[in-house]
Amino acid sequence: MHVDIGAALGTVADPGVDEDALDALDERVAAAHETIADGREADEFGYAALNLPDRTDPEMIREAVEPVADAEYVVTVGIGGSALGAKTVTAALADDPDRHVVLDNVDPEHVERTLAGLPLEDTAISVVSKSGTTAETLANFLVVREAYESRGVDWTERTVATTGESGPLRELADEEDLPTLPLPDGVPGRFAALSTVGLVPAAIVDLDIEGLLAGAGDVADDLGPSLYDTPAYAYGAVAYALEERGASVNAVMPYAERLEYFAEWFAQLWAESLGKDGRGQTPARALGATDQHSQLQLYRAGPRDKMVTVVRPRERADVPVPDPGNESLSYLAGADLGELLDAEYDATVASLSAAGRPAVELELDRLDARNLGELLYAMEAACVLVGELADVETFTQPAVEWGKRAARGLLAGEDTEETRTVADRPSYRID
Amino acid sequence: MHVDIGAALGTVADPGVDEDALDALDERVAAAHETIADGREADEFGYAALNLPDRTDPEMIREAVEPVADAEYVVTVGIGGSALGAKTVTAALADDPDRHVVLDNVDPEHVERTLAGLPLEDTAISVVSKSGTTAETLANFLVVREAYESRGVDWTERTVATTGESGPLRELADEEDLPTLPLPDGVPGRFAALSTVGLVPAAIVDLDIEGLLAGAGDVADDLGPSLYDTPAYAYGAVAYALEERGASVNAVMPYAERLEYFAEWFAQLWAESLGKDGRGQTPARALGATDQHSQLQLYRAGPRDKMVTVVRPRERADVPVPDPGNESLSYLAGADLGELLDAEYDATVASLSAAGRPAVELELDRLDARNLGELLYAMEAACVLVGELADVETFTQPAVEWGKRAARGLLAGEDTEETRTVADRPSYRID
Repeated sequence: MHVDIGAALGTVADPGVDEDALDALDERVAAAHETIADGREADEFGYAALNLPDRTDPEMIREAVEPVADAEYVVTVGIGGSALGAKTVTAALADDPDRHVVLDNVDPEHVERTLAGLPLEDTAISVVSKSGTTAETLANFLVVREAYESRGVDWTERTVATTGESGPLRELADEEDLPTLPLPDGVPGRFAALSTVGLVPAAIVDLDIEGLLAGAGDVADDLGPSLYDTPAYAYGAVAYALEERGASVNAVMPYAERLEYFAEWFAQLWAESLGKDGRGQTPARALGATDQHSQLQLYRAGPRDKMVTVVRPRERADVPVPDPGNESLSYLAGADLGELLDAEYDATVASLSAAGRPAVELELDRLDARNLGELLYAMEAACVLVGELADVETFTQPAVEWGKRAARGLLAGEDTEETRTVADRPSYRID
Repeated sequence: MHVDIGAALGTVADPGVDEDALDALDERVAAAHETIADGREADEFGYAALNLPDRTDPEMIREAVEPVADAEYVVTVGIGGSALGAKTVTAALADDPDRHVVLDNVDPEHVERTLAGLPLEDTAISVVSKSGTTAETLANFLVVREAYESRGVDWTERTVATTGESGPLRELADEEDLPTLPLPDGVPGRFAALSTVGLVPAAIVDLDIEGLLAGAGDVADDLGPSLYDTPAYAYGAVAYALEERGASVNAVMPYAERLEYFAEWFAQLWAESLGKDGRGQTPARALGATDQHSQLQLYRAGPRDKMVTVVRPRERADVPVPDPGNESLSYLAGADLGELLDAEYDATVASLSAAGRPAVELELDRLDARNLGELLYAMEAACVLVGELADVETFTQPAVEWGKRAARGLLAGEDTEETRTVADRPSYRID
């Protein structure tokens, strides 16, 4: 992965980072790197995620999915970190990304329609919940099982469960003798893409999970004490510095449809890790070139509260644009769709600079397993670095617990502090 | 459409709007409403969009698509406002939303794969470009035509063109004698969902476009001078007041998978209309309940720079959760997936309030054509109101022109101010 911070420098952009400030920040990066390296060395909670390229055993995953490896489709039943990493990998790499379907919401109509559209006899299930109690995941899993049963398909022969050592999902898996995989120790869900949590569907559709881990491992091996030698840290340090200077929004805009899920995955990584103590950039998910016709007006002329992260592969498929045979379209003559997309990318970065708005470029040599592994790992390392620099608890998500308790209490019909708050919540209706 | 602003009041949230401030704002709403009513009366540029429910002729659309009305699939070739509204309607309402495919990006691999997956002999084309020169749209249309030709399918018999009175797309349509539809006068693309621009694919898959327009028309007829009597204005006024008080991000979080595209459509409407003169909320697209496991940590514990707009239908499909047969999942016993989703919705709004973060609720009686029409129109009216209150040029998007010129110049190999800026753009690589 290559990082270009040129369009984020203070000579170009406001907010922007002066080179002096970067030099000063680099000393803090060195200290943060030491904390990170120590955390990895001791396999501390969270930091352990950065050891996954070494720890994840692709062979174990391939063995666990062997009974379902001939399935044409795989449906992931999971939510948040138990779904986004897995979908990011298959969306980026599978010949046919539609072979991997995700049920990560409990919208009844959507769940029903999705299941109705799948040939269940040819569909594997990857159910993922660390605690085994996640409400959305377990409810969906119960519905999925019943759909298989009602269509006379044995779900127990098609299911791989990834779950912790105890809990209802583990009990159930043991009862039915399902193939199971453990979750990695000390790794929050949003940092688990490069583990069993993220790689089961990829293994089922036979992607190069070894290459993915190898690419991630290369970045892991190259983490060093200076942002000038470590692209992942350069990205994190610049994002941190821009946030300090007012860029409270980080618009992540891949120029590749296959990386649309990457932007979703990034959004969870960034928001849940860094959104605490009254700070943290808001990730805005975008897609180039499409969102030039939707969000670029705001990015160029709205508040100076954004950085734009553009991402692209350097190689694209060849799809020539046929001769338009029309004078006013002559600029398209002889072009390729990929050239057009790259021209839009270059134009967008330059147009942000022309308006004094900061951008950071991330480029992959090509969109393959190895490069995707580099990208995912680099963003994780960048996120951990920002957490160190901002002094927040990167690996927890305490603010979501209240709502989980409330939802469970509501369903169970309990009278708790949370359910009372829901019942008494303020209302001012305008109909 | 029902609006509840209770969770955005100053007694609950910070930022929040005190009732006194709302009363004061209501006087400005009355003045803005007069401007809007005058603009509609005179069919002025932009304001004309708010007359679409009366002006759009569904019969004309049904006649134009009659030659392709038996197609199983329809592919929209368009970008930005020429695609998002159309997809929002079919995604919300079609029995099978996958019947409508959108090519709104020029990613070569994606375009090629999408076309390879469609039975072109059974696929209608809706090509939409006001100027007829939009680079992405015209390039894609050329590629699409060639794909039909290479598979021996006559694209001229399957294409409906929606375009202005002149330009290359109009010329081409005339040459090939394609059915064409005009765009409405004085309506920017992002406000054109309720016109030919948004309704062609819906007509092809035979949705109730008359009901959609009728729902929109009901809201149009009810626009009045006070936010207390006009839900659309209540939403807009509160969004404006919250932005003034620091809510620079508007996270739009529908609790319905079928409204995921609505959030995309809203994001364009809001960003391109209001993102100017250094102001404008950044729309953050989210989805409930999924993003509770991704973004809620940030929304509750990050910077106090957000409002959250939740949206839900009041009716949901019945999908009971089967008996879990496990003590620790007993709270799911007897529940329905829809109940779970609604419990999550209630819990999220209350959990934002418990953290003092503002939320506004939008509810539809049910997700049908009529209610969707109400929602789309109400958001457009809200957006226009915010533009009046903020004193911005709601209906233009000047900041995107620079990049368009640059991309065209790059493709044509021209030496212009824009292409020189691209060539000289700052670079600071870290590899």
